[in-house]
Amino acid sequence: MVDGEALKAKAQAFRLMHRGPKILVLPNAWDAVSARILAEAGFGAIATTSGGIAFSLGYPDGQHIARDEMLAVVRRIASAVKVPVTADVEAGYGKRPEDARRTAEAVIEAGAVGMNFEDATGERERPLEDLTLQLEKIAAVKEAARAAAVPIVLNARTDVFLLEVGPAEKRYAEAVRRLSAFRDGGADCVFLPGVRDRETIERAVRDLKCPVNILAGPGSPPVTELQKLGVARVSVGSGLTRATLGSLRKMAIELKNRGTYESLEIGIPYAELNRLMA
Amino acid sequence: MVDGEALKAKAQAFRLMHRGPKILVLPNAWDAVSARILAEAGFGAIATTSGGIAFSLGYPDGQHIARDEMLAVVRRIASAVKVPVTADVEAGYGKRPEDARRTAEAVIEAGAVGMNFEDATGERERPLEDLTLQLEKIAAVKEAARAAAVPIVLNARTDVFLLEVGPAEKRYAEAVRRLSAFRDGGADCVFLPGVRDRETIERAVRDLKCPVNILAGPGSPPVTELQKLGVARVSVGSGLTRATLGSLRKMAIELKNRGTYESLEIGIPYAELNRLMA
Repeated sequence: MVDGEALKAKAQAFRLMHRGPKILVLPNAWDAVSARILAEAGFGAIATTSGGIAFSLGYPDGQHIARDEMLAVVRRIASAVKVPVTADVEAGYGKRPEDARRTAEAVIEAGAVGMNFEDATGERERPLEDLTLQLEKIAAVKEAARAAAVPIVLNARTDVFLLEVGPAEKRYAEAVRRLSAFRDGGADCVFLPGVRDRETIERAVRDLKCPVNILAGPGSPPVTELQKLGVARVSVGSGLTRATLGSLRKMAIELKNRGTYESLEIGIPYAELNRLMA
Repeated sequence: MVDGEALKAKAQAFRLMHRGPKILVLPNAWDAVSARILAEAGFGAIATTSGGIAFSLGYPDGQHIARDEMLAVVRRIASAVKVPVTADVEAGYGKRPEDARRTAEAVIEAGAVGMNFEDATGERERPLEDLTLQLEKIAAVKEAARAAAVPIVLNARTDVFLLEVGPAEKRYAEAVRRLSAFRDGGADCVFLPGVRDRETIERAVRDLKCPVNILAGPGSPPVTELQKLGVARVSVGSGLTRATLGSLRKMAIELKNRGTYESLEIGIPYAELNRLMA
């Protein structure tokens, strides 16, 4: 059972991290031990990655997983660390505002204090949700948070860039139109994954006038530069998951082809991991 | 629902891998995607790691996890790959032979075709199970396999070396006494983790006269040497899990302290992982 007052305080603390002088750097975990290792590395808050969780459970990314399955992992992650956890809940697991509300309730029940909520539909012909309906869903999320008295941080995301929706020259305007509406509808932070160049990032921060989340990885400006550009929050999506899996592949190839164990030398000692998880 | 005939054939194929001219190299997976990556690397069979699964779910290793929780992950892993999967089920989740039988039934229901079964009790004063009782448990596992008509490979393990039980000079004799009894009681392969030196490995293979599993990692003889020593099967326990977590820690430290993403460059591309999990 999650303690309501403690969760409320944690949500408020997480909320403040979006308004501080320092950029909020959120690494994304996919299971309990990855979250614990990230917390030990000193991060003040942790995000989840829907892609990483889906892969770990045996699914491709993109809402092939059921809400309960996703939230069960969010709960394990939130239970594994003391710092605030924000959950990537994709498009909210359902088409109706009440699905979004139920998902927000489940996020709070799982002990998370933030949620990423995206406008991708998963449909090829109509890749982005109708803006009016998306705003109704956002209102439903806000209503769930009010009802639970836990001020979760709603990070509203548009996939205009990620899914390359419409002509390239019109994407920026469409993204800003959507994100501005999300902001006015109550989103605490807005997120436009797929944008990596300094110029567009700086322009978005200026135009959106609210905390902006940037997805970073190899090729992105480093964190210090993102901070200078006015970015409030940076996360890495499935980047850490994919990189650890890339490491695993390298180790597997060594073991299979050479029959040696050199790449295993980076391993955390067994006793240390047991202490970490105790 | 697992297809009984297909599972039987898979168990028989896995069984033969212990008697072939080539050593059986088993990498240990802890979730669906790690299993899929190991299968893609070309391994002919995959083991699970109880430690890796426990860490991933938020527990320390050593039977802190419930049978159903462990087997749910085994099921995901067995469903994720076509090759035979053998499950590390620790000491079988319970003190009685009927607990061991129930665990063997659950292994088969999960779609695995082998199980690691150890004699550690988790008790400080009495670290190893009474040999007579352990043999009754082994008989119960064999009975479950017979009843299900799935000839799972029972890899019976003693923790004499791993737990450093008794005076050092008496451990080898005690391990051989136990493993010989396990073999005569129906174990298909015997396992003595904690033994890494060539001399003891060679001696054990000679004395045990049945397939022997060696736990390998940095410092162990390479696979080709283990094969020359007559080892039938080599596995890496939680080694791959701990090494990928070591990689994660390195990436986390880079992101936290330098705010850069260089160590993420090894990442498997998102689209490729989605295809891998489709």
